[in-house]
Amino acid sequence: MSEARVQRLLGLLEEQGLDALLVTGRQNVRYITGFSGSNGVAVLRRDTSALVTDGRYKEQAAREAPSWETDIYTRDITDEIRARLADSTSVGIEDSSSIAFQSRLATALPDVELKPTSGMVEQLRALKEPGEIEAIRAAVESAAKAWETLLPMIQPGVTERQLAAALDYRMMSAGADKPAFDTVVASGPNAAMPHAKATDRPLAEGDLIVIDFGALKDGYCCDVTRTVALGEISKRAVEVLGAVRSSWDAGFASIAPGVAAAHADLAARGQLERLGFGEEFVHSLGHGLGLEVHEKPTLSKLSKETLEPGMVFTIEPGIYIEGEMGARHEETVLLTTDGCEILTKGINL
Amino acid sequence: MSEARVQRLLGLLEEQGLDALLVTGRQNVRYITGFSGSNGVAVLRRDTSALVTDGRYKEQAAREAPSWETDIYTRDITDEIRARLADSTSVGIEDSSSIAFQSRLATALPDVELKPTSGMVEQLRALKEPGEIEAIRAAVESAAKAWETLLPMIQPGVTERQLAAALDYRMMSAGADKPAFDTVVASGPNAAMPHAKATDRPLAEGDLIVIDFGALKDGYCCDVTRTVALGEISKRAVEVLGAVRSSWDAGFASIAPGVAAAHADLAARGQLERLGFGEEFVHSLGHGLGLEVHEKPTLSKLSKETLEPGMVFTIEPGIYIEGEMGARHEETVLLTTDGCEILTKGINL
Repeated sequence: MSEARVQRLLGLLEEQGLDALLVTGRQNVRYITGFSGSNGVAVLRRDTSALVTDGRYKEQAAREAPSWETDIYTRDITDEIRARLADSTSVGIEDSSSIAFQSRLATALPDVELKPTSGMVEQLRALKEPGEIEAIRAAVESAAKAWETLLPMIQPGVTERQLAAALDYRMMSAGADKPAFDTVVASGPNAAMPHAKATDRPLAEGDLIVIDFGALKDGYCCDVTRTVALGEISKRAVEVLGAVRSSWDAGFASIAPGVAAAHADLAARGQLERLGFGEEFVHSLGHGLGLEVHEKPTLSKLSKETLEPGMVFTIEPGIYIEGEMGARHEETVLLTTDGCEILTKGINL
Repeated sequence: MSEARVQRLLGLLEEQGLDALLVTGRQNVRYITGFSGSNGVAVLRRDTSALVTDGRYKEQAAREAPSWETDIYTRDITDEIRARLADSTSVGIEDSSSIAFQSRLATALPDVELKPTSGMVEQLRALKEPGEIEAIRAAVESAAKAWETLLPMIQPGVTERQLAAALDYRMMSAGADKPAFDTVVASGPNAAMPHAKATDRPLAEGDLIVIDFGALKDGYCCDVTRTVALGEISKRAVEVLGAVRSSWDAGFASIAPGVAAAHADLAARGQLERLGFGEEFVHSLGHGLGLEVHEKPTLSKLSKETLEPGMVFTIEPGIYIEGEMGARHEETVLLTTDGCEILTKGINL
C-alpha cells in the first residue's frame, strides 16, 4: 500500500521537475510511510527514500514503517536530511512546513534549491482506497455504539460536560483510540456557537442540543452531528430544525460525481436563504476527512474542487442565532460512481 | 492581564524595529488576546491591534477577547490583515507560521517587508504569572482526583486501552476539559516505547506499566508519569525502577534559579550512565508546559536556556529496553526564587 502511494508521489515529483520531496506534515508522513509518531520527516527520492525521526521513535518506526530506511538524528533533524540530499539540486518542501524549518534547511543545504509544494500528498489522500474506507467505517461503528447507549442520558439536569465525557468514554470503550476532535455538546443559547466547548450548563426542557462528535480509530476519523430537541420546544426551534434538515437534503441531492464542491455548498445555502436563514449559516457546507478531520475537498462557495468518486466528506449545514439557539445536521458521506452513501446513517436519534 | 502582555510584546517589537507583528500560533493568539478558537491571527500594532477570525467564531471572539477589535473575514484572512497593515513597512511574522501563509501574505502585501520572528510570545509565556500557576494547579487537581480512583483498577487482565479510557473519563469528570495529550498506558514490552499508544494488551503479573497522563483545564496543562509494578517483578525491573528514581533525584537536585537547562539534563543523564543505563535514556530530561504541553524551556543537553523563577517544566528521565520493559518517572515542577516545588506531588502510588 505504502509502495503504491510512493510511486504515485514520485510520478508527481517528476512532473514538477523535482529530485526529491521533503514530506513534513504528520499525517502525510503517516500516509506514505505508515509511521504515526509526532516527529518525522520523509525524504522521498527516486533511488532511496528515508524516514528521519528521533530516538524516542526508533522501535515504533521499525514496526510501523518496516519497508523504510530509518535515520535517527541526535542533534538536529537537518543533519540527517542533509546527508540524504547532498547530491540533490531541486528539492520540494511541503508549504505547510514552518518558515523556521525552511530557514534551517536553507542554511544546512546552501546548494540546494528548495521549492515549496502545495497539497501533493493531500491530493492523493483525497481519494480514499478501499482499506481507508473500511477504516472510516470502523470509526463510525465505535461512534454509533457509543451514541446508542448515550441517548437515555440526554435528560434535563445533566450537564454538557457530563454528556461529552460520557460520549468520549463510550467511544473509547467501543474500540476508538480517542475522539477525533473535541466533542461539542452545546445546549440552548450555547448552540449558537458552531464550535462551542462543552460547559457546566445543565440541559433544560425546551433546549436544542447540538452534539458534534466523531471517533478516531487506527488513524481514521468520522464526524457526525445530531441536534436533539429536549422535551417540548418552541415553534421557532421547530422551524430551525426543519430548515436545517431541508438544507441538508438540498445539499445531498446536489452531489454526484463531477459536481463542483461549490455547487453543493450553494445548493444547501440557497435553501436556507429561501427560508430566511441565509445570514445564520456562518460556515461552509462541509469538508473531506480521513487521517485528519479536515482535509480535501472543501465544500465551500469559494472552493475550486470537483467532487469525485472515492472522496469522503461531511455535509453539515447549520443555523446559529446569537443568544438564542443553534442547530446543525451532519453526516459523513462517501461518493461512489453510483452516488452518495451516508456512512453515518446508523447513528440515529 | 492581556493588556500587560501586549505592552511587553510591543516593547519587544520596538527593540526589533518592527511596526507590527502577526501572531499566528494558536496558543500565542490565546495568550495575548484570550481568544481560544482554532482560526485566528492577532495583528499587533502600537496604535490599534486587532484579532482576525472567521464567522464561526464571531460570538466566541467577542466573549473571550472583549478588549480586542475583531475583524471577521469572509473570503481570505489576508484581506483583513492587509487592511490593518496597509501603512506598515516592516512587519514581523512568527516563524512557526507556514510557508504557504507567508507566501499568501507576501502577495497580498507587496510593499511590506515580512520579517520572521522567533519565539517572541513564547519567551513571555515561559515565565508564568500567578494566575497561570493557579490554572496549572487546577489541572493537577483534576488529574490527581482521577488517579486516586484509578489505582484499584490496575489489575491483571485489564487492558491498556480500558485503563486509558477510564483515566481520561475520570479526569473529565473531575473537571478537566480533556486530556492534555494522548494518555500513555504502556505495559510490559510496550513500555519500551516512550510514546507508546494504549493497546488491547491485558496487564499481566510482573509488568512494569508506564502511565503518562495529564489534564487540560481552562487552557492549561499538567503532565505526570507513574510507573506501576504489577505484583512481583523481576530483579532487573527493580533495578530499572531504582535507576530511574535516582536519576530523577539527581536531575531535581541540580535545579535552581540561574542553572543551565542543559546542566539539569546532564545531571540526570550522568546518573543513568553511572548505573549502566545511559544508552537506554533516549529522550531529553524535560520540557516547559502551560498553554501547550511542550513549550519553553527545553531541558536537553543541547539546550541554551537558563532556568528562571516562574518557569514550570517537567523532569522525566526514563529507561527503555527494546522488547523487554520500560520505566519513566515524571513530575511537573515550578521553579521559584526559593527552589523547586513539585506541583504533581499529590499524585501518589
